[in-house]
Amino acid sequence: MFESAELGHRISDREYDRAEPGLREALLKAQYDLLAKKNFPVIIVIGGVDGAGKGETVNILNEWMDPRHIITHAFGEMSDEERERPRMWRYWRALPPKGRIGILFGAWHTEPIVNRVLGQTNDAQLELAMEEISHFERMLVDEGALILKFWFHLSKQAQKKRLNALAADPKTRWRVTDEEWKRFRLYDKFRKVSENALRETSAAHAPWIVIEGADPNYRYLTAGSTLLDAVTKRMTGARPPISRAAALPKPALDRRTVLSALDYEKRLPRDEYRRKLEKYQGQLNLLLRHKKFCRKSLIVVFEGADAAGKGGSIRRITGALDARHYTVIPTAAPTEEERAQPYLWRFWRSLPRCGRATIFDRSWYGRVLVERVEKLCPEEDWMRAYREINDFEEEMVEAGGIVTKFWLTITKEEQLKRFRAREKTPFKSFKITPDDWRNRKKWNDYERAVCDMVERTSNESAPWVLVPANDKYSARIAILKTLCERIEAAL
Amino acid sequence: MFESAELGHRISDREYDRAEPGLREALLKAQYDLLAKKNFPVIIVIGGVDGAGKGETVNILNEWMDPRHIITHAFGEMSDEERERPRMWRYWRALPPKGRIGILFGAWHTEPIVNRVLGQTNDAQLELAMEEISHFERMLVDEGALILKFWFHLSKQAQKKRLNALAADPKTRWRVTDEEWKRFRLYDKFRKVSENALRETSAAHAPWIVIEGADPNYRYLTAGSTLLDAVTKRMTGARPPISRAAALPKPALDRRTVLSALDYEKRLPRDEYRRKLEKYQGQLNLLLRHKKFCRKSLIVVFEGADAAGKGGSIRRITGALDARHYTVIPTAAPTEEERAQPYLWRFWRSLPRCGRATIFDRSWYGRVLVERVEKLCPEEDWMRAYREINDFEEEMVEAGGIVTKFWLTITKEEQLKRFRAREKTPFKSFKITPDDWRNRKKWNDYERAVCDMVERTSNESAPWVLVPANDKYSARIAILKTLCERIEAAL
Repeated sequence: MFESAELGHRISDREYDRAEPGLREALLKAQYDLLAKKNFPVIIVIGGVDGAGKGETVNILNEWMDPRHIITHAFGEMSDEERERPRMWRYWRALPPKGRIGILFGAWHTEPIVNRVLGQTNDAQLELAMEEISHFERMLVDEGALILKFWFHLSKQAQKKRLNALAADPKTRWRVTDEEWKRFRLYDKFRKVSENALRETSAAHAPWIVIEGADPNYRYLTAGSTLLDAVTKRMTGARPPISRAAALPKPALDRRTVLSALDYEKRLPRDEYRRKLEKYQGQLNLLLRHKKFCRKSLIVVFEGADAAGKGGSIRRITGALDARHYTVIPTAAPTEEERAQPYLWRFWRSLPRCGRATIFDRSWYGRVLVERVEKLCPEEDWMRAYREINDFEEEMVEAGGIVTKFWLTITKEEQLKRFRAREKTPFKSFKITPDDWRNRKKWNDYERAVCDMVERTSNESAPWVLVPANDKYSARIAILKTLCERIEAAL
Repeated sequence: MFESAELGHRISDREYDRAEPGLREALLKAQYDLLAKKNFPVIIVIGGVDGAGKGETVNILNEWMDPRHIITHAFGEMSDEERERPRMWRYWRALPPKGRIGILFGAWHTEPIVNRVLGQTNDAQLELAMEEISHFERMLVDEGALILKFWFHLSKQAQKKRLNALAADPKTRWRVTDEEWKRFRLYDKFRKVSENALRETSAAHAPWIVIEGADPNYRYLTAGSTLLDAVTKRMTGARPPISRAAALPKPALDRRTVLSALDYEKRLPRDEYRRKLEKYQGQLNLLLRHKKFCRKSLIVVFEGADAAGKGGSIRRITGALDARHYTVIPTAAPTEEERAQPYLWRFWRSLPRCGRATIFDRSWYGRVLVERVEKLCPEEDWMRAYREINDFEEEMVEAGGIVTKFWLTITKEEQLKRFRAREKTPFKSFKITPDDWRNRKKWNDYERAVCDMVERTSNESAPWVLVPANDKYSARIAILKTLCERIEAAL
């Protein structure tokens, strides 16, 4: 993979001077087009060996284009807010919105490669990390992003020469510390590991572009013209095909579903409800104050038919908690800033730190529920969402997240009764809108979507818990009890 | 201040049941009006003694209104990202946008009060903190916010009774830990300190509303109806008058200004420039890698006439730094999310952590420059900005920020030359827009605005450095040298 970047590529000053003005002008024009149309973000990932001109190339790109619309982000030590969330959280934070160019220095590949080189992980772990990255980049591209990954390479000899030259020049001496020499001694290992990692994560939709870093003219023109070509091509409409998902199963012939199989007749008497509520609220409270919980986090998703009792159930949970330890995130229409990002972005934003809980009142599942049923996004987009959602939740679980998803379900008759009651109570009438009546007409479509969702996204580490909620008391107790059990099992 | 909240206020269940439905309905309606009009945010601050029903009141407010549009935020331990920034940073993060209600539990008053009670600070420090808070709340109100500060009070006896009751009930036992009893033993001190703090921060535009917490009916109805009155009144247009600022001085009779007094003829030969650039870049790099810098942060502001060379100067700074340690924030038109917040909000967002630098390419000074000259905001608004900006920068300095502000200034003739040159170079033409020509016509207005700005916002800990920039070389060196000196002095 690196051989063709050890050939001593060069471009003469004369040639450079001839090419540079035109390239700058075209890049600038492309940048302004992008900014005006805001149809996709450009994500430039920068990696490579020390001394291969990564920083200088970033500076040149900032000089050639309008730096006010380029977001450059370099990743160093993690903050504790970052450390206490899934690995990819910090990168989600730094994604450029549509219309902008984001340059990410030492992005998501760096840490897994470095950890492998230092022997802190093994080959299987590296491969797993690269797999995760591939999924992530695939999702970004499916969401419309243009990704360019530049790897600046130097042969071992060239790197040594370069480091020596930097160290000899008083102007640049500061750039070569013991750290750089220590890394130089690991050159062979680094080369092997990164070649491996690059191969695993190079794909037609997000290729690695390996650039020989020895000659500045060569590396600047190569990076600049590659960027220009990619942006221009994408501007004219060429877009990698969206990844195809496996077809959904047909509904069963006997029309029996996970929803129809539930027992909607269960009733809990008020006395028993009170007693159990007290018991499980106390238990939940203790569990979240448990010593071991400070290394965990709790993510609870509430979805359900309109009027199924999500709000009331959530209040029974939060009533047991210390206000400093939880947040309830109601999911409404996304803001301008959120619309300029992949659909999962706004949920990543709200993930809890260790020792905390986030309760989502509706969630990322909107993609495969309302957006599917109301045809707010094309089929290929919601179809791929199942996998993206599974990846998302897997990352939470890996980082110590206890993920539980409740689907509150009521019968059609019960819903009608509740709608009518809401209409009659003035202070509840805000809860019933024309939307609710409209959704009700699509009852069967929603039921189908829910069954598919459960089929595709329920698994042991992030299960869907289907809660028949015709009886509010038994539903609330079932939810509290499940939560307690799941947290207990995780501690 | 607390006497009238120790009278044993009560409301009978019958009275409560009669009043509650109407109040809920009206609150809900007000909330929806607010949401539709998005003309101001409602900030509800919750404070008071343990066991006085703070949490329960927040729960009731969430039940009475639509909780999806209420943002409840409780402040516990600081994260390191919060600790490494000015004290108020975490509160800025939590401010509700226009149209929303934000409930802030244990907000900005809590920490100073607790620190004083525990004897970690003295009276003068408490007073200073309250002064800072008063300024902050004044600014929020001037920016349009409606602030309600509820203090839930219990007499010592009532608190003891309440804590005992909570501890006796297995359902609520968890809420009374050693911590609560420890705080109870400090009741008298707490009462004295908080009474003091409340008095210092109670103002017509942001009053404290002290509510006796013993009787739930009383506290819920009081909080709810107070909120309703305030929102309704504000909705109908009643708004506290904007705070008046002292008049600006007239221009001096001899027309000599800080700008005209500069030497625009200074020139630095290229050789000397190169030598000095190398020297100061190296020095700057070392300073930011200095052991002591990890407890400091660097905030650099660049303002200046169009084409004065801000971009080039910034690149000479960043060229000397490690990409992981700095961010350049270009200031363009605010986004939807930013427009829904006080104008300083987006700059607070970008303040650096310890050991880092943020360079602002244009900044919060837009308020007293372009917004003033172009009449984008009323005079009373930009006039009060001087003080708000001084407060903002003071908070940075208190938290270890090294604040330096550069005004790059060129003569009118030099600007014309540069505009023409930009128009002729294709890859520079993006830097020259009709706006630039329009601004140029207001040269004198801008000059006036700059002189007033320097007069009002330059001080020893956050000085304006006026840099004559007809000669780019000498300007860049002056900037680098000043930066080095300021950092050195601060370490």
